[in-house]
Amino acid sequence: MIKVSVFYANEPGKKFDMDYYCNTHMPLVQNRLGTPLKSSAVEAGLGGGEPDAPAPFVAMGHLYFDSVEDFQNSFGPHAEEIMGDIPNYTDIAPTIQVSEVKL
Amino acid sequence: MIKVSVFYANEPGKKFDMDYYCNTHMPLVQNRLGTPLKSSAVEAGLGGGEPDAPAPFVAMGHLYFDSVEDFQNSFGPHAEEIMGDIPNYTDIAPTIQVSEVKL
Repeated sequence: MIKVSVFYANEPGKKFDMDYYCNTHMPLVQNRLGTPLKSSAVEAGLGGGEPDAPAPFVAMGHLYFDSVEDFQNSFGPHAEEIMGDIPNYTDIAPTIQVSEVKL
Repeated sequence: MIKVSVFYANEPGKKFDMDYYCNTHMPLVQNRLGTPLKSSAVEAGLGGGEPDAPAPFVAMGHLYFDSVEDFQNSFGPHAEEIMGDIPNYTDIAPTIQVSEVKL
């Protein structure tokens, strides 16, 4: 299983519309990627490791697939539409990581 | 539900022993935290968002709890032992985030 994580850094003065992300963007992603997308998750940053420390990320989104190929084949044809929706909820440039699920 | 994520940045020249992390460190954490720990997860970085881009994080660990209080109350008494185990698998200073699970 692989996991594609999208991190939105917690940067001063930037916007992030969590309602739009959860209720419009993620349903769009799920619809376009279809059955190769095994599951998805969204988190909102609450804090860091020390009391009163800010969260490093204001939001994170995660997409799970059986393989990197499944991600590429399902995401590729819809990349332009999905990436084009980002300005509708944030002006933060996302950081992307592809990971292997170990546990 | 809240999620405590521990990020290990992919830094040149640093070490990370994934076998120790999965088979010794995480079982230690699970044992000490007990039933307040609802589930846990580990991922290994494969790559970034562009072809051939390095993964931002060499490893990530995630712990799920019903509340921030459950995390603090279960982790606090064992923080010294758990944090003291980190040098056994890495010399990377971890970044910690506490998040609210939205989806």
